[in-house]
Amino acid sequence: MPSRSDDDDPRLGDVSEGTVLRAILARTPSASHTILGPGDDAAVLAAPSGSVVATTDTLVHGPDFRLAWSSGYDLGWKSAAVNLADVAAMGARPTALLVALAVPRDLRLSFVEQLADGFRAACEALAPGCAVVGGDLTVSDVLTVAVTALGDLEGRSAVTRSGARPGDVVAVAGELGLSARGLAVLFGRFRDGDVPVPVVASQLAAGERAALDAQLRPSPPIGLGPVAAMAGATSMMDISDGLALDAGRMASASDITIDLRSDSLGDDPRLALAGGEDHALLATFPPDVLPPGFRVIGDVRTRGADGVLCDGQPVDVAGWDPYRDWDAAAG
Amino acid sequence: MPSRSDDDDPRLGDVSEGTVLRAILARTPSASHTILGPGDDAAVLAAPSGSVVATTDTLVHGPDFRLAWSSGYDLGWKSAAVNLADVAAMGARPTALLVALAVPRDLRLSFVEQLADGFRAACEALAPGCAVVGGDLTVSDVLTVAVTALGDLEGRSAVTRSGARPGDVVAVAGELGLSARGLAVLFGRFRDGDVPVPVVASQLAAGERAALDAQLRPSPPIGLGPVAAMAGATSMMDISDGLALDAGRMASASDITIDLRSDSLGDDPRLALAGGEDHALLATFPPDVLPPGFRVIGDVRTRGADGVLCDGQPVDVAGWDPYRDWDAAAG
Repeated sequence: MPSRSDDDDPRLGDVSEGTVLRAILARTPSASHTILGPGDDAAVLAAPSGSVVATTDTLVHGPDFRLAWSSGYDLGWKSAAVNLADVAAMGARPTALLVALAVPRDLRLSFVEQLADGFRAACEALAPGCAVVGGDLTVSDVLTVAVTALGDLEGRSAVTRSGARPGDVVAVAGELGLSARGLAVLFGRFRDGDVPVPVVASQLAAGERAALDAQLRPSPPIGLGPVAAMAGATSMMDISDGLALDAGRMASASDITIDLRSDSLGDDPRLALAGGEDHALLATFPPDVLPPGFRVIGDVRTRGADGVLCDGQPVDVAGWDPYRDWDAAAG
Repeated sequence: MPSRSDDDDPRLGDVSEGTVLRAILARTPSASHTILGPGDDAAVLAAPSGSVVATTDTLVHGPDFRLAWSSGYDLGWKSAAVNLADVAAMGARPTALLVALAVPRDLRLSFVEQLADGFRAACEALAPGCAVVGGDLTVSDVLTVAVTALGDLEGRSAVTRSGARPGDVVAVAGELGLSARGLAVLFGRFRDGDVPVPVVASQLAAGERAALDAQLRPSPPIGLGPVAAMAGATSMMDISDGLALDAGRMASASDITIDLRSDSLGDDPRLALAGGEDHALLATFPPDVLPPGFRVIGDVRTRGADGVLCDGQPVDVAGWDPYRDWDAAAG
């Protein structure tokens, strides 16, 4: 698309808060659960089944994204998707997002417009009926997108991490390791020294585009969260920090051991075990149940010395801990 | 209180995310509406009346607070209070907070512990029954606290900004200008050149302590939001950016003119009109209604050329716009 001239695309520090808000609101449709949308002190959402699911997750420039690799659209999409996945992982249907945006004053207005477009597109593609219903806009030297997602259980009980029972099967819906593969492509091939540089499409090998998309604009199977709950999932969570680490959390919460099958983890089981940010849904089901969209990757056993095994052997794979692992770079 | 040694009080970059989370959760009681609290992908809250009020507001180091002036406790308290006020302004009772925290790695663990204590204390003091039910922890070079507050309308309709009618009285509950007076004391007397320095209690004149408290740990009258709604408030909002600016927003939303009375605006009507961050509740009521805790400060008139008058004359007072007004300093 043709880029706008600087006159057409001012920096945020040169326009009023009202101008920025109007640009966002023009790109923010109302949602089916919205009783009162943006513009007042707070939004009001329908919660017809008498409860509401709520979660929050933040993307920070540097540890969570680089502007050379992520467009505003990508960032809006991903910020929505990672929060929608947390709602889906409870077995709920997402109803609304609230977006707290802290933006540097030298950022262009078009970036914020693209961000709003990304939020809208992710909701329409991944969670129809959900939309941004409120937000907050402030300035910061570090671009920060803090999102809260709300959801409706439609009368069901929430599916937690703690209900897995020995004898259940372990199943997953969505990608394993694809997002990490995309991150490896970015860090390995699209940097000049330590500085991220834009992706050149012609330099991508077959399959790498899908890996980059999974990293920059993940599409977790949001609609399968309610499907799993209705089918009788005994436990569920989304895989944010890698299968091994998150399966270990489920095993601890449920006081069981999860034994994974390497032959169900794709071409590169180690990447599937370690790779974060896929936001696939990890669930356990009674042995006679497997809803469409899920594939079996292991079994639930009585709790042993290790929370997670693969082919009966202990798994030693670390996940991502931003407190230790972020290199303090941005770009 | 005695300060802890560095060994007892590590920097966040030297401990795991789990250590920080455990410190926060140990200070986070459950709330009366909590069906499922922290620890899973999302929280589940009761929404017994079939809807939920939701709002988000962020405090960023620099434009919104300075660490020389605000303790962790102050910051937690204020982050809670400003969000609770937005829920109250809809006529709702706050039920839950979600806290997205982005913290520099050189911050001390004790700061985060105090922050959690401040959240808890503000909820207990201002909105009993409300508590932090979920959150997110990430790293950032800029300390950022993004809070989402949820509330319950208890079967009532939301009170918006748009329902004021000619003939209504304009009333307020809470302080006007006190927080701005506190900010003026901080910027005027507790800086070394441009650099904020800690407040010295012995240098405060009579009344200045209350002004500082209003700025650093505001106590808006959260419980009076539902009271106003039950009494029949026709419109309501919290005063974040100053009475003149926010009354103008209410006047635009309701298509009326608000005529304030200077003799009801305290010793310094200009400060009351311009001063932001009080989070007092501004409401309109039918002429025969005034619930306890509210005082009349003006009248609603048919829409004229100006949205806000004072003693029948136009008011020209600007509020705070971080896009234009922040000086880019922190400290």
